[in-house]
Amino acid sequence: MSKLSDVCQQVLAKVTPTREEREGVLRLAESIIARVAEEAENLGVEVRPMLVGSMAKDTWIKGDQDVDIFMVFPQTYSFEEIGELGLKIARKITGGKGEEQYAEHPYLRAEINGYTFDFVPCFEIGNAVQLRSSVDRTPLHTRYVLSRMDEQLRGETRLLKAFMKGVGVYGAELKIGGFSGYLCELLTIKYGSFESVLRAAVNWGSQEVVDIEHHYDDPEKPRKMFNAPLVVVDPVDPKRNAAAAVTQQKLSEFRAAAMSFLEDPRESFFFPPKRSPLTVEELAAKMKERGTSMIFIEFGTPKIPPDNLWGQLTRSLHALQKILEREGFKVLSRDVWSGEEQTIFILELESRRIPSVKKHFGPPPASPHQRRFIEKHLNSPSTLSGPRIEGDRWVVEVKRKYTEADTLLREVLRKTSSIGIGSYVAEKISEAFSLYVDEEILSTYSKNREFQEHLTLAITGKPRWLT
Amino acid sequence: MSKLSDVCQQVLAKVTPTREEREGVLRLAESIIARVAEEAENLGVEVRPMLVGSMAKDTWIKGDQDVDIFMVFPQTYSFEEIGELGLKIARKITGGKGEEQYAEHPYLRAEINGYTFDFVPCFEIGNAVQLRSSVDRTPLHTRYVLSRMDEQLRGETRLLKAFMKGVGVYGAELKIGGFSGYLCELLTIKYGSFESVLRAAVNWGSQEVVDIEHHYDDPEKPRKMFNAPLVVVDPVDPKRNAAAAVTQQKLSEFRAAAMSFLEDPRESFFFPPKRSPLTVEELAAKMKERGTSMIFIEFGTPKIPPDNLWGQLTRSLHALQKILEREGFKVLSRDVWSGEEQTIFILELESRRIPSVKKHFGPPPASPHQRRFIEKHLNSPSTLSGPRIEGDRWVVEVKRKYTEADTLLREVLRKTSSIGIGSYVAEKISEAFSLYVDEEILSTYSKNREFQEHLTLAITGKPRWLT
Repeated sequence: MSKLSDVCQQVLAKVTPTREEREGVLRLAESIIARVAEEAENLGVEVRPMLVGSMAKDTWIKGDQDVDIFMVFPQTYSFEEIGELGLKIARKITGGKGEEQYAEHPYLRAEINGYTFDFVPCFEIGNAVQLRSSVDRTPLHTRYVLSRMDEQLRGETRLLKAFMKGVGVYGAELKIGGFSGYLCELLTIKYGSFESVLRAAVNWGSQEVVDIEHHYDDPEKPRKMFNAPLVVVDPVDPKRNAAAAVTQQKLSEFRAAAMSFLEDPRESFFFPPKRSPLTVEELAAKMKERGTSMIFIEFGTPKIPPDNLWGQLTRSLHALQKILEREGFKVLSRDVWSGEEQTIFILELESRRIPSVKKHFGPPPASPHQRRFIEKHLNSPSTLSGPRIEGDRWVVEVKRKYTEADTLLREVLRKTSSIGIGSYVAEKISEAFSLYVDEEILSTYSKNREFQEHLTLAITGKPRWLT
Repeated sequence: MSKLSDVCQQVLAKVTPTREEREGVLRLAESIIARVAEEAENLGVEVRPMLVGSMAKDTWIKGDQDVDIFMVFPQTYSFEEIGELGLKIARKITGGKGEEQYAEHPYLRAEINGYTFDFVPCFEIGNAVQLRSSVDRTPLHTRYVLSRMDEQLRGETRLLKAFMKGVGVYGAELKIGGFSGYLCELLTIKYGSFESVLRAAVNWGSQEVVDIEHHYDDPEKPRKMFNAPLVVVDPVDPKRNAAAAVTQQKLSEFRAAAMSFLEDPRESFFFPPKRSPLTVEELAAKMKERGTSMIFIEFGTPKIPPDNLWGQLTRSLHALQKILEREGFKVLSRDVWSGEEQTIFILELESRRIPSVKKHFGPPPASPHQRRFIEKHLNSPSTLSGPRIEGDRWVVEVKRKYTEADTLLREVLRKTSSIGIGSYVAEKISEAFSLYVDEEILSTYSKNREFQEHLTLAITGKPRWLT
């Protein structure tokens, strides 16, 4: 037996739920579904409750606790109605417990017998053309996967999911930008086994197109249409890229890990050792060794759905980087950590301070704009040197407005509205923010273990499987 | 009378030698020529001495003291012979005084009655096809210009030369990279007046072609053939660009000054006020204001012909800049000053120190080179962070070898041979060099007035006519 199949067998034993576990959760789900039907009937509401997702498809991996109960409404109901009715029915079942979540429709999330149940309303559709909200597709996905998978493929899917979790590319949410469970299932269906998916991924070209049901006669069509790092045409909806969430970063990480795993199969790809975070002293030493400048911006975490939050955080951080770069600072890396209460932007700069002098390019010599350029800069108080000619351009050296990154950031963060910071983030920052530079960051670092783990990973900067 | 012609008239009065001066120098030259003929006859050498250059063409400007006596040998002599015979005859005339100079042939330079005489040997040629050394053309140039100029044009030429001197673009030597006297004459012949040359220059396009004698039917031919910022086809040699020495920098400076002068004619373009150099305290304040890092490298000036010297200095300085940039330092400007005894390279850096950390890009993820890249960097002592994936590339952050520019430069200057430093410069540097950083430069600055003027101009960085 090869090392690879050896490893796979060991992993499979760990990630496959036992028969008892599977039967247990299915029984629980069935009883909940029966109660949904009952409550709906009591309310005179026409709805078909069903189990969807990895529990329904039997592709979940041991330890998963998410059970998705969809409440399928006929199209005679309005968009608003199914949201309200869905919540109403769900609350009856949980006895009012659970938290309201927001996606396209509001839905209820509640703990039942140690599992996390999502009660999600959607519309009944026969095919994707009738789609009214994106969750309407989910029952079609469940049906498609069930029709194409046997026990063997379910195991291969579990291996692929566990591998993706282990190497850090699992999850279609914005925070991750990786592979959804459904995408793992599709890839397994396409290539036939976990190992074949990895081998195929290693050989994927740029903007690879996977079109299982041959919806397109020419891969160039979906490639142009979706223009994404990876295109996997959704079998139940040719107009959808099931890999739309996958970023270039996560695609690269997956392919690199796939190649390294095939070269040297080890269980640690699936179950990477947890690294203990750097101590404060170790972090201080690392920073000194790097010789760069580290800035933390800490503020309260906005209470909005995770995908909204991560969209805003990513955009805001990008905006801050652009501002720093526009003013002449060199940003080596940017990162964000967001906990329950506090969020921290992390910026690493080549240097906290930059020289006052900044070269400003003007018109070509003897151009009609020469005179205005000279007049503007010749005796201006902001001119440090020039104007003079360099090659085929007028240039002038002017005084920078900001020579310290933290001064610039503090000023910018006081007027967040105008600079591309997301509105919820801006609101939180305008309430209060703290900015720490270099050695000042150490006390912030020492306060939160989760943040320590995050920053340690970022600073040592290796994929978890690289040991 | 317009302001422009007013200014021109005043300048012309100042730059035109008096009739007495002109007759005086011509009489002196004639007597020297007669003596050359006499000495040649005594030695049994067949040679035709002649006055060439601006004295012969009567386009010199008051104060010029260079008299060029060419000794034209028939082609029956060898290359070496005319060099030796030329020196021999010249020494007879100067009574052994004068300094031997080196160009294509050796020649003698000597002071006679307050004028600087150059005695240059060349071959007699009927046209450029017979050329054996580039000085052979000079008699043809003299003949051409004499045939095309009247008294009026001579005045216009004097204005153009004086303007170019004033704005700092006069001189074809490498140190300047500007316009030769002959080029000034050609431009005046082409455009008919000083003012017309300026107006034309303002409107010159990129790689403008001036072809007075219509040697080419299509300007694209000489443009492609010479591929220079400015192309002026030599009337006596279509294969030569009479503007080959003109750099983009000096062309730009000339055109910019031309435009500004036409907009606002002032005598100060011709006779710019001398700026008094910054005091040591003023320089220190300027440096502090700029917030950059200044480095001087001082060494003995190699005793080689100026064009060789400036070629080597320019190349060497460029090599140092490349090395600094390759190691991650940002060079804001480079400059060189070369006096009789000492030469100083001046480098201004964004910062003397840069962070240890340096990003090194590797192969794409899942490429065949991935394994080697990981193996090379994973546990290397020079790795500060990673290897990890960024987008579609592996990257690793490694420790820089040099984080201080002066440390790097000191090391590099100890092995000058391998880094593109010119051989004569390398020899001098290997004998001894001093390196000064930031406040250390001030004592060097205080020592030499000429250097002070040079650095002051560089630091304030304005064309001399810009006031």
